Amino acid sequence: MNVVEKAKLAKKASGLLAALAPQQRAKALLCMAQELELGQSHIFRANNEDLDAAGKSGITGAMRKRLALSEAKINGMVRALRQIAQLPDNLGEIIEKINRPNGLAIKKVRVPFGVIGIIYESRPNVTADAAGLCIKSGNAIILRGGTEALRSNTAIVSKLRTGLERAGISPECIQFLDNPDRSEVHTMMNLRDQIDLLIPRGGPGLIQATIQNATIPVIETGVGNCHTYVDATAGLAMAHSITVNAKVSNPAVCNTMETLLVHEKIAPEFLPGVARALISHGVELRGCPRSRKLVESIRPAAEEDWSTEYLGLFLAIKVVSGFEEAIEHISKYGTAHSEAIITEDPEAACKFTQSVDAATVYVNASTRFTDGGEFGFGAEMGISTQKLHARGPMGINELTTYKYVVEGTGQTR
Amino acid sequence: MNVVEKAKLAKKASGLLAALAPQQRAKALLCMAQELELGQSHIFRANNEDLDAAGKSGITGAMRKRLALSEAKINGMVRALRQIAQLPDNLGEIIEKINRPNGLAIKKVRVPFGVIGIIYESRPNVTADAAGLCIKSGNAIILRGGTEALRSNTAIVSKLRTGLERAGISPECIQFLDNPDRSEVHTMMNLRDQIDLLIPRGGPGLIQATIQNATIPVIETGVGNCHTYVDATAGLAMAHSITVNAKVSNPAVCNTMETLLVHEKIAPEFLPGVARALISHGVELRGCPRSRKLVESIRPAAEEDWSTEYLGLFLAIKVVSGFEEAIEHISKYGTAHSEAIITEDPEAACKFTQSVDAATVYVNASTRFTDGGEFGFGAEMGISTQKLHARGPMGINELTTYKYVVEGTGQTR
Repeated sequence: MNVVEKAKLAKKASGLLAALAPQQRAKALLCMAQELELGQSHIFRANNEDLDAAGKSGITGAMRKRLALSEAKINGMVRALRQIAQLPDNLGEIIEKINRPNGLAIKKVRVPFGVIGIIYESRPNVTADAAGLCIKSGNAIILRGGTEALRSNTAIVSKLRTGLERAGISPECIQFLDNPDRSEVHTMMNLRDQIDLLIPRGGPGLIQATIQNATIPVIETGVGNCHTYVDATAGLAMAHSITVNAKVSNPAVCNTMETLLVHEKIAPEFLPGVARALISHGVELRGCPRSRKLVESIRPAAEEDWSTEYLGLFLAIKVVSGFEEAIEHISKYGTAHSEAIITEDPEAACKFTQSVDAATVYVNASTRFTDGGEFGFGAEMGISTQKLHARGPMGINELTTYKYVVEGTGQTR
Repeated sequence: MNVVEKAKLAKKASGLLAALAPQQRAKALLCMAQELELGQSHIFRANNEDLDAAGKSGITGAMRKRLALSEAKINGMVRALRQIAQLPDNLGEIIEKINRPNGLAIKKVRVPFGVIGIIYESRPNVTADAAGLCIKSGNAIILRGGTEALRSNTAIVSKLRTGLERAGISPECIQFLDNPDRSEVHTMMNLRDQIDLLIPRGGPGLIQATIQNATIPVIETGVGNCHTYVDATAGLAMAHSITVNAKVSNPAVCNTMETLLVHEKIAPEFLPGVARALISHGVELRGCPRSRKLVESIRPAAEEDWSTEYLGLFLAIKVVSGFEEAIEHISKYGTAHSEAIITEDPEAACKFTQSVDAATVYVNASTRFTDGGEFGFGAEMGISTQKLHARGPMGINELTTYKYVVEGTGQTR
């Protein structure tokens, strides 16, 4: 079946899904979780085939790690589905009431989008998270995963669809594009009559291609060139532990820190120690001339280092003359994802959170917390870096829209 | 100055605007209103020049009417600015608080988009409404009006900018594209680094061109193929007055009814009377064969009548076998703008508001109420017909986004 046929099936199924009782959607998620749990060996076989093929085509390192499913990862998918099932159902919620002088009663009611398309890269656990969040929020979903994870995703989707069926819901609510042909993706990006929202989740290439080619409304996600600014007033121990955590705890993800900005007053005391710790974790440091005067082992940074999302054990370091230069640097190179200040000065904290235009702005915490799970959303559909509709982690509320229901008694204008 | 330079000035000015005290933005609106009031004769002169030029190029009828400014229209613009000034300031509002078990305090804070671009057609009063809503919500604005209103818009913008200056705010917060060259619009649609949101407000041609060409996030507005469904249980008198009002009170606007759907049971009693009333208002009726059996003066409707937004004194009429056929027709031909049911049956009302996927769904009221002023928003930036971010009338809240501010005490992950 091609993408147009699949999208039509999804559109049709979405209307029925939204009309179900909340308990039925929650039950569907529990059935989906159970099918994944029972189907582990099937999923592992498929994943092994993907890994074999990836090996033959030379995929190694971080990408292979992202592709590989472990028991822990499958348990994580199962747990996320169960958590999403427990979230309060949000459909039909009256977000706002407006009573007009002419007697019209206007209610702003939360409703699903209808059909949501997601285009994502290697990690197969996105498949279950995204499907779970969509079903819970009353949306049908069209999944287009990475080609290298085709067998793993096919296996996962087949379990999820079985779960839907067991809960008495049409399996057509979850559609998966198993045709690796790229022209399918291009068609998908322009199915304005069937798909209400398109979410690309992956690297800058995928995001840019979607922005350039899609005519469906898009939410950009996931490109994170995140900064941590250590202010002159920072507590040294806290700055040290946050810096190390933000870089090394999971360098392959979008909320990891890529550039460290350090106030010149605190740099001589702070940089040598944190540099040693980072290097001991295998991080390669690339810095401005001032940082290199303080720490010999920092290599010279090129202009492109300031704008690179490394997604690996590299860190750009810049000593700044103060607050203003830090803000300017972030404004110039940041991707509006997650930015942090470490400071003991409440005024500096307040100025930072006001001046920095990003989805998530931190005071005295690691940028690594920008995550649906960490925000209490159960899972996430992606981290939005655009300003329209949703910013930061997207959970079930961000997968809904609203309609106005206006009740009258014959009013005319 | 070209659009890129103007957009850069707007971007720079927007940061300062958002940081101002609420009273200062409110004061700016009052100054803008006063300058419009004092500058009436200047604006009329410019408008007369536009009308002369329009006459020479053969513009007549509804389009000329939309272009012409009267004292009443200018007073309306002034009043709208003063109403917007009075609205509670919404910036900095804490929309939601999430306290996490690890001690992180997450606040979801309302912030402006930054720079909003609007591309609109002839009506010069949009210029003042749009600028007022943007300034109030802390956004800089880039206006691109219709070429036929160039002189009127130039005059209005010059007054608005003077008002900003008098309030001590940079006039660069309001930018106007006075170069009628279409390539400027194309450039504008792709200034992703300067413009955060693009709103096309006009006919289907403009909306489609924007969707096809823009890479900036877009909110579609204003195409309204609106239906009124008269159910078998409708009160006849109410159905009559709503139908006539929804068609004739202002046929040139997007919330006017374009198709009337009538339940077969009530059609023989309802249609002849309402047809007479509509015809007496100069409406040309085009109907299905069943409607024509009941009323001789209804002309035959062609397939395209069901999908046409007439914006004039025409009405398509269809007799339907029941609720389901009405819903199906609306789903097939509607533009998700405004849809109404006239019924005395609460169950039918509930089913209709749930099943119809539109920005605004009415029970026993005229579709003409879909309007920022009528919703209590002071004015509107347009009526969104897409589902992302905003649906229906867009006031100051719809011109904002949010950021997450996360306060920690050294949390790492």
